[in-house]
Amino acid sequence: MFENVAIVGATGAVGEEFISLIAERGLKAKRFTLMASARSAGKSINIRGEPHKVLDLAKASFDGIDVAFFSAGGGRSKEFAPKAAAAGTVVVDNSSAFRMDPNVPLVVPEINPDDVKNHRGIIANPNCSTIIMAVPVYPLHRVNPVKRMVVSTYQAASGAGMSAMLELEQQSRDVLAGKPAQAKVLPFQLAFNLFSHNSAVGDDGYNEEETKMVRETRKIFHDAQIAITATCVRVAVMRAHSEAINLTFSRPITPDEVRRILTDAPGVRLVDQRNPQHYPMPIEAAGRDEILVGRIRQDISQPDGRGIDMFVSGDQLRKGAALNGIQIAELLDKK
Amino acid sequence: MFENVAIVGATGAVGEEFISLIAERGLKAKRFTLMASARSAGKSINIRGEPHKVLDLAKASFDGIDVAFFSAGGGRSKEFAPKAAAAGTVVVDNSSAFRMDPNVPLVVPEINPDDVKNHRGIIANPNCSTIIMAVPVYPLHRVNPVKRMVVSTYQAASGAGMSAMLELEQQSRDVLAGKPAQAKVLPFQLAFNLFSHNSAVGDDGYNEEETKMVRETRKIFHDAQIAITATCVRVAVMRAHSEAINLTFSRPITPDEVRRILTDAPGVRLVDQRNPQHYPMPIEAAGRDEILVGRIRQDISQPDGRGIDMFVSGDQLRKGAALNGIQIAELLDKK
Repeated sequence: MFENVAIVGATGAVGEEFISLIAERGLKAKRFTLMASARSAGKSINIRGEPHKVLDLAKASFDGIDVAFFSAGGGRSKEFAPKAAAAGTVVVDNSSAFRMDPNVPLVVPEINPDDVKNHRGIIANPNCSTIIMAVPVYPLHRVNPVKRMVVSTYQAASGAGMSAMLELEQQSRDVLAGKPAQAKVLPFQLAFNLFSHNSAVGDDGYNEEETKMVRETRKIFHDAQIAITATCVRVAVMRAHSEAINLTFSRPITPDEVRRILTDAPGVRLVDQRNPQHYPMPIEAAGRDEILVGRIRQDISQPDGRGIDMFVSGDQLRKGAALNGIQIAELLDKK
Repeated sequence: MFENVAIVGATGAVGEEFISLIAERGLKAKRFTLMASARSAGKSINIRGEPHKVLDLAKASFDGIDVAFFSAGGGRSKEFAPKAAAAGTVVVDNSSAFRMDPNVPLVVPEINPDDVKNHRGIIANPNCSTIIMAVPVYPLHRVNPVKRMVVSTYQAASGAGMSAMLELEQQSRDVLAGKPAQAKVLPFQLAFNLFSHNSAVGDDGYNEEETKMVRETRKIFHDAQIAITATCVRVAVMRAHSEAINLTFSRPITPDEVRRILTDAPGVRLVDQRNPQHYPMPIEAAGRDEILVGRIRQDISQPDGRGIDMFVSGDQLRKGAALNGIQIAELLDKK
C-alpha cells in the first residue's frame, strides 16, 4: 500500500491512461497527486470518482510521495526526476532520459522483474515499440536464444501524444472533404499516408526510435550480443502499434513450438487463426493488456529451420507505456 | 504502331489507369477497344477525347486486336486470355493466372525485357508488391548478388480494387462520425487500422501475396536460389504500396555504393534526405512512375557489412500494374 502516488504529465495521453488503469487495476494507494506543466495546472481530473486538482510540476513538492509516474517528456524527466528521487520518491519514468543509464533499471515485469531491486530512485519504462516486441520474443529467447531480429513497425499516432491523435482525426476529415491536410504536430500528413518515424536520424542512418529498440532490448534481455535491425514507420492508426518480426534462433525451432511457448507466456495472447483469418489488428489490440501475436510461421528464407516470422499488435498507451509502469509499481509494492 | 489495342477490365481501378497512361505516354495505336464484364458493358469512356463504348467481354471478338491488357481478375484471364492469344492477340495479363507458367514470360521491363521475346501469346505482369520491390533491388543484385531478403509491406487499398478504395473512404467517414465501419469489400475495417493481407494462407503459413513476392522475384531475376521471406499487410493508404526491405548481399556493400547504383537505375528515384527528413511516402509516390527509395543504411545486425536496410514506396496502380503493362507493350512495339 502506497501513501501517495503522483502522476506527472497527468493531462497527456499516457497520463490519462495511468489514471484509468489505476482505477481498473486497483493500485493500492491512499492518495494521488497529479502534476503537469504550468499550462495544464489548475485543471480538475477525477480519480476513482474523486476530483483532483492538477498541480504545477515546477512548483510542486515530492515530499511524502512514494511513487511518481513521469510521462511529461524527456526534458522534464531530466530536470525533475532526480529531485523527486532525492526527496525519497521512486520515479517510474516513461521518457527515454534514463533508460540507458547503467544505474537505472529498465524493466518489463514479464521479463526482468528482479532488476527493479537495483534502483537508486529511478526506474525506466522502456520505449513502447521495444516493450511490444520484447514481451512476445523473450519467452522464446529464454528457451532458444535469439541471435538476430529484423523488425518493421507500424506505429500509431498515440506514440506522438494526444495532440497527434487529434491531428490524425482532423487531417482525415480534411482529406475526405477534399481539403489539404495540415501537419502541425505531426511532421507530415498521416491521414491516408505513412512516414518514416521522425525521430532524429544518426550518423549510422538509424532514427532514435530504431536505436532504442536495438539498445533497450539488449539491456532488458541482459544480452549485449543479440543482433537487431529495425525500421520504424508511423501509420494512420490511433493507439496500437504493430510489428512484423523476423527471428533467427540459435537452434531450429518450429511454429508449433513457438505457439506452445507463447500460449503460456505472460502478457501475450495468441491470435493466429487461418480460416477464417484472424490475426493481430490494432483495433483489437487497443484497450487490451496483452500483446496479440499471430502469423507465426517457419521462415522459408532460412532453410536450416532456425527462422520464424510473426506479427504482433499491442496497445501503445497501455502495455507500451502506462500499464508497464503500473506493473513496475506493483512490483515495488510487493517488495 | 498497333492497329487495335484492347483494355479488358476497362472500368476497374487498373483499367482506368491503363486508359490515362495510354494518353499520357502516347502509346502508338490506331484504335482502342474497351471490354469489361456484362455489368459494365454499354458504359462510355473517353480515350484521348474520343468516347468508346465498353463491350461485353463474354461476347466480344479479339480478331484484329494486336495487344490486350487484361485486368479483370484471374478467372476471366484464365477463360479469355487463351482465346485472345489463339486469335493472334498478345495478351499482357495483370492477373496471377499465368505468372508462374513456365511458358509465360513474367516481365519487368527495367529488369528482364528480353524475356518478352519468348512469349506464346501471353505475357504476365507481376504482382504489384513484387514489382515495387524488384525494380530497386535488381540493379543492386546485378552488381552484388542478393542472397536473402526480408520484406514487410504496407499495402494500399487500391490493390483490392476501386471498390476497396471507396470503402476505405466510407469507413473513414463512418469512424469519424462515431459509427461502426462496414466491411463489405475489404475483409475487416481498414480505416484507422491495418490487417494481414487477406489472400488465402497456405500450409506453410504464408499467404498468397507473400508467396507471389517470393516466387515471382526468383523468376524475374532468373535466380532460383535467392532466399526471400515476406510479411504482407494492408494499411489505410489509397494507392501506393510501401515496403521495408532488409537485404543480405554476397559481398560487403556500403550505403554510398547503394545510393550510387540507384541514382542511375531506371525506374527509381532516390528520396533519402536526413535533415530535414524526406523519405519515401505513399502520398508522394502516388501518381508517379518511379519507385521512391530511401532510408538506405548499413544493417547493423550484419556486422560483416553485407546487410542493407531500405524503405520504398511505389504507385500500386501505375508501376505496380498499368505502367508496367504499357511498358511491356512498348517493348513489343519496338520489336
